[in-house]
Amino acid sequence: MSLITLGVGDLARARRFYEGLGWRVGLAVEGEVLFFQLNGLVLSLYARAALAEDAGVAEAESGFAGITLAHNVRSAPEVDAVLGEAERAGGRIVRPARRAEWGGYSGYFADPDGHLWEVAHNPGFPLDAEGNASLG
Amino acid sequence: MSLITLGVGDLARARRFYEGLGWRVGLAVEGEVLFFQLNGLVLSLYARAALAEDAGVAEAESGFAGITLAHNVRSAPEVDAVLGEAERAGGRIVRPARRAEWGGYSGYFADPDGHLWEVAHNPGFPLDAEGNASLG
Repeated sequence: MSLITLGVGDLARARRFYEGLGWRVGLAVEGEVLFFQLNGLVLSLYARAALAEDAGVAEAESGFAGITLAHNVRSAPEVDAVLGEAERAGGRIVRPARRAEWGGYSGYFADPDGHLWEVAHNPGFPLDAEGNASLG
Repeated sequence: MSLITLGVGDLARARRFYEGLGWRVGLAVEGEVLFFQLNGLVLSLYARAALAEDAGVAEAESGFAGITLAHNVRSAPEVDAVLGEAERAGGRIVRPARRAEWGGYSGYFADPDGHLWEVAHNPGFPLDAEGNASLG
């Protein structure tokens, strides 16, 4: 687990809320996405509609929780390997892996209850030996 | 962030899936709840209906994502303090803090988009200096 993304209806409102809790934005693409460095992982705020689109699901789908978990790995082939493993374990590939605009490579699977996991290689997010993610 | 709980429809099925990914259960209350130790945090699998009940929301509510995030703190008064802070920041107290059957003290707030956070003091989950949770 390296990243949790919360889909939000209003990025500025969500930012105010989490800053109100004393969190500090570590990285921001203004108006688009915000990242907070937590202990060993990163929490991201992203427009709910954009998150649904990224995961390849319909936003209005009653099963869309508006939240995704991410497992970051060290290479693109590892992304394919983990997605294959998830499928063999009984998961469903929701969006096959592809090159991402942000320079990485990622895909999504759903666990048997529909919880969405992104498997990603992001050259911009270093992982330490324990798999902890940092904003670099 | 110390704990993520995924609400599941069938605990045995969810366990098989995550074990199929190579994860090992670190702690289990048989038939009730399972914990996996991840990097610096714990992922828990729990019946979706029980999770909704614990959070004080209706399971069928379309807004219930079947997933909760938890922020563990070092004492019961800190739970109240964090819940107060969340409310002042614009969050909504979903379930006021109370003593829990598992020996701790916890309550829930919702962020402006309805994402559920549990604020908990759990004497059984030690936190290190960075706030990383471990199964002890």
